Amino acid sequence: MPEPKIITSAQNPFIKEVAALLHKSRTRKKTGRFVIEGQRELQLALKGGYEIEALLVCPEIASEELAIEQSNYPIVQVSKSIYEKLAYRGSTQGVMAIAKAKEHTLGQIRFKNKNPLILVAESPEKPGNLGALLRTADAAAIDAVLVANLQSDLYNPNVIRSSVGCLFTTQVGIGTSGEIIAFLKDRHIKIYCAALTASKNYVEMDFRGSSAIVVGTESTGLTEAWLNNSDQNLIIPMQGEIDSMNVSVSAAILIFEAKRQRGF
Amino acid sequence: MPEPKIITSAQNPFIKEVAALLHKSRTRKKTGRFVIEGQRELQLALKGGYEIEALLVCPEIASEELAIEQSNYPIVQVSKSIYEKLAYRGSTQGVMAIAKAKEHTLGQIRFKNKNPLILVAESPEKPGNLGALLRTADAAAIDAVLVANLQSDLYNPNVIRSSVGCLFTTQVGIGTSGEIIAFLKDRHIKIYCAALTASKNYVEMDFRGSSAIVVGTESTGLTEAWLNNSDQNLIIPMQGEIDSMNVSVSAAILIFEAKRQRGF
Repeated sequence: MPEPKIITSAQNPFIKEVAALLHKSRTRKKTGRFVIEGQRELQLALKGGYEIEALLVCPEIASEELAIEQSNYPIVQVSKSIYEKLAYRGSTQGVMAIAKAKEHTLGQIRFKNKNPLILVAESPEKPGNLGALLRTADAAAIDAVLVANLQSDLYNPNVIRSSVGCLFTTQVGIGTSGEIIAFLKDRHIKIYCAALTASKNYVEMDFRGSSAIVVGTESTGLTEAWLNNSDQNLIIPMQGEIDSMNVSVSAAILIFEAKRQRGF
Repeated sequence: MPEPKIITSAQNPFIKEVAALLHKSRTRKKTGRFVIEGQRELQLALKGGYEIEALLVCPEIASEELAIEQSNYPIVQVSKSIYEKLAYRGSTQGVMAIAKAKEHTLGQIRFKNKNPLILVAESPEKPGNLGALLRTADAAAIDAVLVANLQSDLYNPNVIRSSVGCLFTTQVGIGTSGEIIAFLKDRHIKIYCAALTASKNYVEMDFRGSSAIVVGTESTGLTEAWLNNSDQNLIIPMQGEIDSMNVSVSAAILIFEAKRQRGF
């Protein structure tokens, strides 16, 4: 069992590295590593088969039993002031982990269901929106979330936070719109675009076959690449004064209608 | 037509008042007034019958045609630096308005439908959550949103912002849980609580009669007051690793299932 190292200086190279992994997409991409904050998130990452390289623990904050068998990992202990400086989310139960990123190529995607149900998000605008979509995807246990033209990176702390760790429990593939469209067509998965034009009421759609529900940005919707390859555009009838819903709300309504039709 | 006054000092009493209305719930409650930022929000407030007392315009930012007949209102013009200091949301199209709050008593609620569809939110934790619920309520054009035990006030800038102005287009009633339960029972409106125990799959519920869908907080759910008066608890089956969804996502799934059953 490795002996816990204790770090008290914010200038320590390890602490600086953790800070860079939290704040810099470039560092995450270059090193293939990222930071997980919080007990629940850490547990979900372990369930999702993520490899943990080290734990960072603040004994003053981490009052609860750690949800992870500590003896399996190198542990770095830090003071409260250092922990709070690092933590993206204030006091995240006093535990962080450095983890190895996974590959998210389309070729690695495997479906649980013979007729998979997939969510595609094109150019999600905010990490928070992507996280919310992943949370819904977990709740519905859909086969995969495919992200087209990801702006930032998947391991942004805000994605992890807003997904409440569901980034780790959901199969995620990343590609260009063109690559994802080819991937879906190869596998005879129907493309249903959430769009305002040439659209059918979503409740009239039959989602029992292989289905990809595709959502765009709140401000501009989906690009032509998707609309030109859509098997059917879908609309959620809106009867109030506004003409758009939050993208994670729309996606949830569409996904759970598909789940209803499939008998959960 | 009143002559526009031009204000250039941040110490001006009017500017200080606007700042207080933006930042202090107490000032809003005491004066019965609040601030609307942004063109779309202002338009929706006018549609919703809100009374505007004055406009605050920054000519340097407000490049677009103002969506409101300016000659009807006293206009205060401010410099860019003052506007940006005030604005809660950065550059909100260079226009704000001071508006009169409405009363939100339960007694004023009128239903559009013979069998109304109502959303009840108990103790919404964050202004952003309440705003998201109001946005969904507008999209679904439900009869009313009733808020039990509102922690802050309805005219918090974050409620307005996250509702994208749907606070103004949706009928909102405020009361204690006890008052709202009595209100619903008096009108023979069934109470359907989103809860994990003694629950029925929401898709098996018949929402065509008068229905109130009741959601609690993400962390602790609904209180006993609601659960003891529930006609039926409802659950959205979750098949992933997590056991809760975002409250605005859950509410949207339930509301749109009701809309589906009612044929929109």
